[in-house]
Order: sequence, then C-alpha cells, then structure tokens
Amino acid sequence: MKRVIQSAINLSTSSPFLVEKIVEEISGLPGLKVADYSSDPDHNRSVVTLIGEEESLEKAVLKIVEIAEKEIDISRHRGEHPRVGAVDVIPFTPWRGVDMGDCKKLAWKVGEKVAERFDVPVYFYGEAALREEHRDLSRIRRGGYELLKEEIDKVPERHPDLGPAKIHPTLGAVVIGARGPLVAFNVNLKTQDLDIAKAIARKLRGETGGLRYVKAIGISLKSKDMVQVSMNLLDFKKSTIYQAFELVKLEAKRWGVEVKGGEIIGLLPLEALVDVAGFYLGIPELSVEQVLEYHLF
Amino acid sequence: MKRVIQSAINLSTSSPFLVEKIVEEISGLPGLKVADYSSDPDHNRSVVTLIGEEESLEKAVLKIVEIAEKEIDISRHRGEHPRVGAVDVIPFTPWRGVDMGDCKKLAWKVGEKVAERFDVPVYFYGEAALREEHRDLSRIRRGGYELLKEEIDKVPERHPDLGPAKIHPTLGAVVIGARGPLVAFNVNLKTQDLDIAKAIARKLRGETGGLRYVKAIGISLKSKDMVQVSMNLLDFKKSTIYQAFELVKLEAKRWGVEVKGGEIIGLLPLEALVDVAGFYLGIPELSVEQVLEYHLF
Repeated sequence: MKRVIQSAINLSTSSPFLVEKIVEEISGLPGLKVADYSSDPDHNRSVVTLIGEEESLEKAVLKIVEIAEKEIDISRHRGEHPRVGAVDVIPFTPWRGVDMGDCKKLAWKVGEKVAERFDVPVYFYGEAALREEHRDLSRIRRGGYELLKEEIDKVPERHPDLGPAKIHPTLGAVVIGARGPLVAFNVNLKTQDLDIAKAIARKLRGETGGLRYVKAIGISLKSKDMVQVSMNLLDFKKSTIYQAFELVKLEAKRWGVEVKGGEIIGLLPLEALVDVAGFYLGIPELSVEQVLEYHLF
Repeated sequence: MKRVIQSAINLSTSSPFLVEKIVEEISGLPGLKVADYSSDPDHNRSVVTLIGEEESLEKAVLKIVEIAEKEIDISRHRGEHPRVGAVDVIPFTPWRGVDMGDCKKLAWKVGEKVAERFDVPVYFYGEAALREEHRDLSRIRRGGYELLKEEIDKVPERHPDLGPAKIHPTLGAVVIGARGPLVAFNVNLKTQDLDIAKAIARKLRGETGGLRYVKAIGISLKSKDMVQVSMNLLDFKKSTIYQAFELVKLEAKRWGVEVKGGEIIGLLPLEALVDVAGFYLGIPELSVEQVLEYHLF
C-alpha cells in the first residue's frame, strides 16, 4: 500500500458474532487490511480499525452500513456511551502518501453515497465539518440518539449535512469525518461509584479545565463491577497519554479509589508509545527512529 | 528489503568526525540502511546500527574495518567500557525473512574475510561461537585489550578462532557473532561515587543473583559528573526493561542517590517498547498488533 488512510469505525453493537461477520465480509477487499477490532459489552460498542486506500475504504464502509442496517437496531440499543447511530462514527485519518485534504474528500464522497443509498441523515465532523457547530463530535452526539431523534427536524443546528432530516429506523444517523490520529484511552477504577468516575472525568476533560485536548466521560462497567474514565486524546502530542494516566491516578488517590489499569481501544500510533516509554524510563530524547521496526516500514 | 539482518557494530572511538566518515562511506551501499549511530565520550565508544541483506552487510563491515585499521589505534584507546578491538564487536541479528542459522553463516563468512584480509585475530561469540568458552562476550572481553594481548598466545581459551594468535597493532582483535535482539539500556545516577554504580550493577547482574538475562557494569561518566549502571538485556522478553529500571531505582533509593534517567543505545525492538508502555499504563494485554505502524511494515 502506497497510500494509507486509517478508519476506526465505531459500531453500536458488542456482538462478537456480528463484528466477526463484518470483518469476514470486508476482509477480502483488495487494498484493505482489518488492522484491529474489539468490542466492549458495557459500552455496547465495537471499533473496527481499517487501513487502506480510498477506493477500498469506500467499499468497506458501504458494506458495513449495509450489514448494520439489517443487523443493528439503534432504536433498541442500550449502552453507556453516547451514540447517534448503528454505524455511529466513521473517521478518516491520513497515514502515508495522503494528507488531510484527501481524507476530507473521502469523507464527503463516502457521506454522499451513504446518505443516498441508505436514506440516512449524515453529519460531517472534525476537519470534514461543513458547519462549525458540527466540528465537535461530542456536540453532535450530545443527548445521544434519543435527543437527536426529537430535535433533528426542529433545531437548525441538528439538521444533517446530507440526507433526510429524519432518523433512519435502524441506522439512526451516521457521523463521518476526517481527523488526525486519536488515542482512545480508558482507565478502570476499582469502585462501582459512577459519581467518582464522572468527577475524575470532569477533572481530566479540557472543556472543564483539564487537559486541553482530552475528552473524558465517566462510565459504569456493570460486567466488571467497576467504573471507567473513558477518554479520547485528540492530540496525543500535546495532551499526552502519561499525563492523562497520572492525573487519573492522582484524582483516584484523592477519592481513596484504586486504579485497576488502562485500556487502549483500537490502535496506538508509534509516536504515542515512544512518548509513554520515554516518560516512564526517564529518557526525554527517546524517538521513533530508535525503534528498529520504524526502519522497516 | 525482503531479507533483513540487523548489525549493531561497536567501535572503540567516540570521534563524531570518524563515525560520520564511516557512515558516509557505507551509506551508498545498495540494500543497506544506517538505521542509527551514536557516540559516548565516557565509554569512548560508538554504535553504528545497520540493517540490510547479507551481501551489503559483508561489504559494509569490510569497509568499516578498513577505515578503523587506519583511523583507530586500540593500543592508545582509553575508555570506561571493556573492549578488545577497534571494531570491537560485530553482531548479526535475524529480523525478517532470515533465521539465526543465516546470521551464524554470515558471521563465519565475514569473520573469515576479516581475518584473512586484515591479519587480525577473530573470535566468534553468541550463537556463532565455535567453542563454548567463547559464547559469552563478556568472557572474551574480560580484562580488555590489555589482558588479551598478554594471554592470546599463552592461555588456550584465549586463542582466536581465526587469524593469528597475535594482537593486530591498531585493530586489536575482532569479535563477531550472531545473537537475538539485545537492548542496551543504561541508567545514570546523580552521584560521582563509582562504587555505588558497581554495587547496583552487581544487584542487577544475572551472574551475581540479579535478573537472569541482564549483564551490568558500573561506569564513571566523567563528562557528566555522574556514574552509570550500563546494562545489556540479552533477552528483553524474560528480563525486561521495566524490571531493570525499577530495580535500579529501588537500589539507588537505598543508597540515597537520585536517578537522572535512562538511555537506550542503538535500537529498541517494538515489542520491548510495548512491554514498557503496557507495564506503566497498567495494560498487561497491550500488544504490538495495537501499534498502527505494525500494520504498515
């Protein structure tokens, strides 16, 4: 692959059967690689990470939406994580031989096809946003599917960028965008007190005074009798993984709560990994060039 | 490159001028990449890490020995690190499309050419050792150039595997071998007391009861007014970087000495990096497959 775009597709299901079916259906596509997939029963979500060129990603996305339309019913979906659709978010991230402009174009092209073929409302977010109020994913998802359904044809901000101003019966809505690499990093706490996770999330969140490029929410992990601070690091070079982890640990200590450990959802850029290791080993100058495999790409 | 062998060549010089000259001279070789090079004034050593196929590595090594013969004089070399030659150690490590057998063959072939062309004693170590007593590099280097010079024609164990039983006037001896990936990891301590570094090294060293696959020595860093625990992790999956780091920190605490930080010399395998990050972030299941770049190799 000379041109490489990454797409970490967020699905509103945690059925391993369904995710494996999807992976199987798209695995044969030429120029595409399913790099990772994982499901979380408490979030009731799955992330399937694809890498490939434009054409194969477009085909894969259309296939996934086609399967989701039949197999997922967003109106009956329950889960701890905010979502507006069965295929909730489709981000495109430039990786090799492409730039953000290519990813924006791909987002718009795929969005058009999805809206047209499935008659579903489509929102463009991140770098592909057509309206400022849709740039921030969390603003589009605020109140989840339930609130969007109510407001979609009433509140101007909530109108989709493409497709009908009407929720699709099974798909809900689809949010498609272009963005830089993001790190999905969760920290699990040995308590069932959701308020603690929410309070810590508030301390971490850039919006409420925490780390500038961190999005954070508190979530209950019923299957594990724990709670979780679930974070997205939108710019891991500026708001780093180790900062997020150490701040969660500090706050947890203040509440007298033990930290079970971290979780990376989807893929981690090598640079983020080097940053973590360099911090904890006291090697500020550690670089990706010092990783052997870096020279084999 | 389909076949990839790594060679972290250890030179007994810390002259940036000379190292850059060497890098320049070999950079043009087809099928070869100079992945990394660095010099340390206290060790008075440099490591040049090459990756490439057999033929190009052979050419590069011969070129390096040719330059070293003229530009380095081991008889006048001073430095904190044990060494027996100007081109002190040439290890070959299998990486992609090759196995340890290929690296052993390459070591023997290169050793033959080096011994013949430069009339220098050659020792085979590690997996390429022809005699059990030469398997362990530290045993070959014990007492350094000075002791080897005295014993080379007198003590049977010290006889070279190839070439004359007589130290070469400028090159000294050359140790060539095959080995798995090794992590060269140093920890610097904010004290000038060499005895503390030596005592901590003893605690870390497998031989004296420390971590099984760790080699460790205490070294004085005169240029930095510090001392160093200089380690080789011969099997970083079994004796890990974070174990070594945490144990040095614990021992340093006992001596009331502050740890300045770590240092990685040469390259780090991705797996070792993942292991460190997984440990410090509390993610025991973190895997190389979760690193985006892993899918781009």
